[in-house]
Amino acid sequence: MNDIAIPGGQVGRSLPRVEGRAKVTGSAEYIHNFRLPGMLHGKICRSTVPHGRIRRIDTSAAAAMPGVYAVVTGEDVRKVIPDPYYGPAFHDQPILALDKVRFVGEPVAVALAADPHVAENAARAITVEYDELPAVYDEVEAVTATTYVHDQLKPAGTFADLKHLVGRRDTNVALDFHLRRGDVEAEFAVADHVFEHEFRTQQVMHTPLEPFVTLADARPDAVTLHTASQNPSFVRVEIARLLGLKENRVRVRTAFLGGGYGAKLYIKLEALVTALSLVARRPVKVSLTMEEQFFTITRHPCTYRIKSAVTKDGRVTARKCEVYYNGGAYADIGPRVAQKSGFAAAGPYDMANVHIDSYETYTNRPPAGALRGFGTPQLVWAYESHTDLIARTLGIDPVEFRRRNLLHDGRPHATGTVMHDAPLGALLDRAAAAIGWGEPFDRGSGPVRRGRGIAIGFKASISPTASVAIVNLSGDGSCTLYCGTVDMGQGSTTAMAQIAAECLGIDAGSVRVVAPDTDVTPYDMGTLGSRSTFHMGHAIRAAADDAKAKLAALAAELGVPAGTNLPIAELFRRKYGAQAGNIVGTGSFMPSHKSPDPETGLTDDATPYWMSAATGCDVEVDTETGRFRILRLVNVADCGTAINPRIVETQLTGATVMQLGFTITEGMEFTDGQLRNPSFAEYKIPGIRDMPDRLEGEIVESRQQSGPFGAKGVGESGTYAVSPAVANAIHDAVGVRITALPITAEAVYRALREAAGDKLAED
Amino acid sequence: MNDIAIPGGQVGRSLPRVEGRAKVTGSAEYIHNFRLPGMLHGKICRSTVPHGRIRRIDTSAAAAMPGVYAVVTGEDVRKVIPDPYYGPAFHDQPILALDKVRFVGEPVAVALAADPHVAENAARAITVEYDELPAVYDEVEAVTATTYVHDQLKPAGTFADLKHLVGRRDTNVALDFHLRRGDVEAEFAVADHVFEHEFRTQQVMHTPLEPFVTLADARPDAVTLHTASQNPSFVRVEIARLLGLKENRVRVRTAFLGGGYGAKLYIKLEALVTALSLVARRPVKVSLTMEEQFFTITRHPCTYRIKSAVTKDGRVTARKCEVYYNGGAYADIGPRVAQKSGFAAAGPYDMANVHIDSYETYTNRPPAGALRGFGTPQLVWAYESHTDLIARTLGIDPVEFRRRNLLHDGRPHATGTVMHDAPLGALLDRAAAAIGWGEPFDRGSGPVRRGRGIAIGFKASISPTASVAIVNLSGDGSCTLYCGTVDMGQGSTTAMAQIAAECLGIDAGSVRVVAPDTDVTPYDMGTLGSRSTFHMGHAIRAAADDAKAKLAALAAELGVPAGTNLPIAELFRRKYGAQAGNIVGTGSFMPSHKSPDPETGLTDDATPYWMSAATGCDVEVDTETGRFRILRLVNVADCGTAINPRIVETQLTGATVMQLGFTITEGMEFTDGQLRNPSFAEYKIPGIRDMPDRLEGEIVESRQQSGPFGAKGVGESGTYAVSPAVANAIHDAVGVRITALPITAEAVYRALREAAGDKLAED
Repeated sequence: MNDIAIPGGQVGRSLPRVEGRAKVTGSAEYIHNFRLPGMLHGKICRSTVPHGRIRRIDTSAAAAMPGVYAVVTGEDVRKVIPDPYYGPAFHDQPILALDKVRFVGEPVAVALAADPHVAENAARAITVEYDELPAVYDEVEAVTATTYVHDQLKPAGTFADLKHLVGRRDTNVALDFHLRRGDVEAEFAVADHVFEHEFRTQQVMHTPLEPFVTLADARPDAVTLHTASQNPSFVRVEIARLLGLKENRVRVRTAFLGGGYGAKLYIKLEALVTALSLVARRPVKVSLTMEEQFFTITRHPCTYRIKSAVTKDGRVTARKCEVYYNGGAYADIGPRVAQKSGFAAAGPYDMANVHIDSYETYTNRPPAGALRGFGTPQLVWAYESHTDLIARTLGIDPVEFRRRNLLHDGRPHATGTVMHDAPLGALLDRAAAAIGWGEPFDRGSGPVRRGRGIAIGFKASISPTASVAIVNLSGDGSCTLYCGTVDMGQGSTTAMAQIAAECLGIDAGSVRVVAPDTDVTPYDMGTLGSRSTFHMGHAIRAAADDAKAKLAALAAELGVPAGTNLPIAELFRRKYGAQAGNIVGTGSFMPSHKSPDPETGLTDDATPYWMSAATGCDVEVDTETGRFRILRLVNVADCGTAINPRIVETQLTGATVMQLGFTITEGMEFTDGQLRNPSFAEYKIPGIRDMPDRLEGEIVESRQQSGPFGAKGVGESGTYAVSPAVANAIHDAVGVRITALPITAEAVYRALREAAGDKLAED
Repeated sequence: MNDIAIPGGQVGRSLPRVEGRAKVTGSAEYIHNFRLPGMLHGKICRSTVPHGRIRRIDTSAAAAMPGVYAVVTGEDVRKVIPDPYYGPAFHDQPILALDKVRFVGEPVAVALAADPHVAENAARAITVEYDELPAVYDEVEAVTATTYVHDQLKPAGTFADLKHLVGRRDTNVALDFHLRRGDVEAEFAVADHVFEHEFRTQQVMHTPLEPFVTLADARPDAVTLHTASQNPSFVRVEIARLLGLKENRVRVRTAFLGGGYGAKLYIKLEALVTALSLVARRPVKVSLTMEEQFFTITRHPCTYRIKSAVTKDGRVTARKCEVYYNGGAYADIGPRVAQKSGFAAAGPYDMANVHIDSYETYTNRPPAGALRGFGTPQLVWAYESHTDLIARTLGIDPVEFRRRNLLHDGRPHATGTVMHDAPLGALLDRAAAAIGWGEPFDRGSGPVRRGRGIAIGFKASISPTASVAIVNLSGDGSCTLYCGTVDMGQGSTTAMAQIAAECLGIDAGSVRVVAPDTDVTPYDMGTLGSRSTFHMGHAIRAAADDAKAKLAALAAELGVPAGTNLPIAELFRRKYGAQAGNIVGTGSFMPSHKSPDPETGLTDDATPYWMSAATGCDVEVDTETGRFRILRLVNVADCGTAINPRIVETQLTGATVMQLGFTITEGMEFTDGQLRNPSFAEYKIPGIRDMPDRLEGEIVESRQQSGPFGAKGVGESGTYAVSPAVANAIHDAVGVRITALPITAEAVYRALREAAGDKLAED
């Protein structure tokens, strides 16, 4: 696509990444490479049972091994942190298991040694005896089960909608969200057609190339953490809370991240490593293996029951959604996933009657939290499969059916919030046009059949959240930008430099972006939810405007006539007589927001912006084996104004590939709470041969009026509509409907045989 | 003294040092303890001749030693830094000697090894051959000598008054400052009395307990320095210049300093260690020994010829001063010492005719730069010895003589700048009263005689210089203060926290002061010249006021009625619904200043404030041996409003003790450019037995109208008048005048014998 002409010329151009050289030459910093003199490595001994009372931990053999510094258990942690439970929504997760374990893989003890291999052998030598307890694994069963994962619920106090759960001893529900608009039951009673389906998604994992890693240098009155975290500001506050310290005594520093995708949010290793450092009185580093990530944080499995009333001419008039999220043993940010996505479960469609119940549940599985899309891909999977089934049943073209129901700007969304700057129609049309929707195509012959699918999804941004930025101009006119946005490979360093440079009328290459460090960079809620370009972009613009106002005041003080275009360095030279001084501009941003009404779930100010995307795809299915190939996949997303079009495209492509893995290859498989495929030989992230023959991303630029330079977030958009587009195309090709992810060849084969009336043996 | 009641109660109180616990428990950071993985240690091979052409450097034996990583010479440096000359006033100092050496001890080559002992042995194995050149050592001879230390002068371009020296090949004068007020010669012609004397001071050293240490991690496009520096902002700009980088690619981080006293200003090891790291492509650390400091930076030896016209009733009507500073081989900041102190050479006296010539000279001695007082103690030594001699000759009481001539507020100083907030009369009176001046006392008997001396001195502050500060308030109301003032033990962390806390209405203990780091803390000219409390204090106040204005705006936005005293944390909670967000306030300060007229040296705006102090002392002298004891020494200084009275007192005492060392024990002794006493067995810093029996400090508080909370600097004031007070007391006791520092027992003995007409053999 073409660059967009913006005065100043820094925004809207596909500039090479300013961090590119450091990454290519190997000088870019990653926490994984960071060492401190005297530091110890910790290796974790994990629970082998899904739910159990700890009878005995025998650390003696491990502690006696040569080179072992110490072996630390939950009781040792309690000596340095008396109330060692953490979490963003519930204070439910112990730093190391105390009394009980709640999932297979839960950390129970840690061996410390200067040599990580010694620590690893020692961790293996720790023996733990458990009294096993009954367990619950399924998100729907969890709602009514009388086996409880937690003895008592402890909401963190942050969220008003969790207050009614304080102290509850009789539930696995960690959030129940309800939205009520109009009267769905009345509409179902009179509808021309009512459709009802259930869809499921599996548990999957983020798999960043850089696994979790944290290094702590902790003292009782001051803590420094070097951690691969997406939200250092949160970590700071939570560690301060655990230790009873003021925020300004906790320093959380990060660096480039080798991927995050939501995994590295909130507390992961940080509390554990802080505790270990306090116990050991030494710096301690824990670097997880790729495989240990299975037991750290995952994406929610989800069961979604959807029921729609539809007129005979294809208008959806009512929709009822029941969404069950499987949060695993600890809530992490799961309740927000349930709420925020529960919110948008009815899809980007215009309907007067909506009834949504969304549940976050505790189960005895590894915890689930945020993963690129924050619940949205699970929802879109369900409602766009459902939409396709309705259209096909009614004999209406699926694209045309969607067009009739799409939400347009100016119309209220299910929550009551009026749509703005969400070009849903344009996205659907572009995706349809890109794959030649409606044009005749070769449907194949013999056992190999071809089909096309389309889907569209959308997501609200997280709100309200704050970002603060500082822009510092030096005596030579170079600029240092302080912002807490974490560069996890998404190109934020470049985008933020472009925004600052555009505002200041300088070159993006002369802006240095300082890595997030709570001692250095001001508050930012976190790098998550595709919020940074919008929120931090605004904060940077405000900071740059502040600096510009100060430059103008300096020029006036120096008697420079207004309109004279003196270089910044020259203003400094005239003021200070040398290369000296700074001009510091600050800016902060938090959009308006109204919390949903606690009774109805409605609000007229749900999000600062909507993000939407449509996917079209062509598939070819071998009806004899179920094996299928995606011939072409086109993802069309809205990004407002692209700050850096090339980076937007890579974001879009990256998200598409990631979601494609969750659609066709990845899945954590459990038997009685035991993960059956805890390795990358068995848990298959997509390889190059799983890729579509043609994979295309396209941006529909549509100015976000409220955004900085018209921009909005785009990091998640590529994920939304991929899964249903594939399922819809397979349906189009061979007439069978897959209702659970992942869509494997085996699943297609089974569906084909089932459709043919065959009975298949269970595997 | 009593605390001063100030609303808010944080300023004016002797709060315990906020950094005290970290220092006492050993957790306070010093660069000396800082290590980086893979770092090398560098040890320096130094010149053995005072002036010579390098014929050959043989590094082969050193390089062949096991464990030696590399041996680096000036030519190696030139490969990574093509123009490797640095300095704040002249670009005259090579990173390692090139072609020539100019003093004994100049760095010629460096051995690098992971083990510092290996590096040290290797450095000793480097052999260098020189062709010796004629040398010049004396500051007076240097002015007219035809032996030149430098082939060509290269002013840095920073200072207008050095422009006429560009390219000069025929001089050792690195600055000639001239002040002309009235007509001294006319006055000398008609005066009742004319007095003329010459005084000298010796070369001495700062001796911080923490010697110079710098660790560099340098790449061609980005440099990080961890260095014990008093002015990281200067180091950043100078290293950027040497490498052709933008400021924002150079990071200079410091920590607590184990003393600075002016030694750790400008570039010391930083350029060398940067070059070594670039050559080695590894982090490199150089930690000097205590003894190597003799060859790094010193205080200027000085020759001062002073001539005064005096009326018969004791009014000084004209004064002519010739001041010669011995700057050693490289100018460092010496030209500013010559100018700033040349400026105040006539003393704190009111006279219509003043003629000052002040010279900074190059010689073949170790370089001299800033040392607590920046030339002032040398001046006061001379003019207060001279003043005493005049009074005694005229039979006027020395205190009364000074009273008749003192400058009073509202009167013009020699430069033409009108005096303000300089309570000279009060200081003199307090010092006189404190030692019982004018009261009868036991003058001793037999060989042991007692006497009293008094002296008064003053100093202008450095001007104009800038400071910038940032105040960041966190969601829990705790405050982080970003300021580049370096805590070298003087208590600035506490004082700055008190100022910020006072302004914000919070407790100083909840302010965390971030250590200077050019990537983190904004610009500050440097921690020097007693400027920080005044300059940075103003910047912090401005930053806090900015934050307060933003807090007020937030309160208004939240609908909090004006005057409601909500805690900061509560404002944040209402805004963000959680412990989130920041309020960032920024402030910068630079006082007005007028450069002196290039012809006359006059200006009506020479300094933002004056700092002054008077010293009184009692001595007892053994006339048979020359041995003397200081029975009592009282130093009375003006500090404006004391931010923390106890810390002011420790500053005053510390400065007094330091100057007392320079007065009675310390002195670098040279023979033909070779330092004869390069160890602390031979160079005697004062011990507890050298201390006065009674050592007292007293503050005269006198609000500095232009200062933050009425404060001004006090770090140097204790040094001003110590030396002449001791000499004046010895004169009072035994009738002999010592005209050169240090005043040793031997010097007194020689003076006594000389006065008695004895001839003594030269030692």
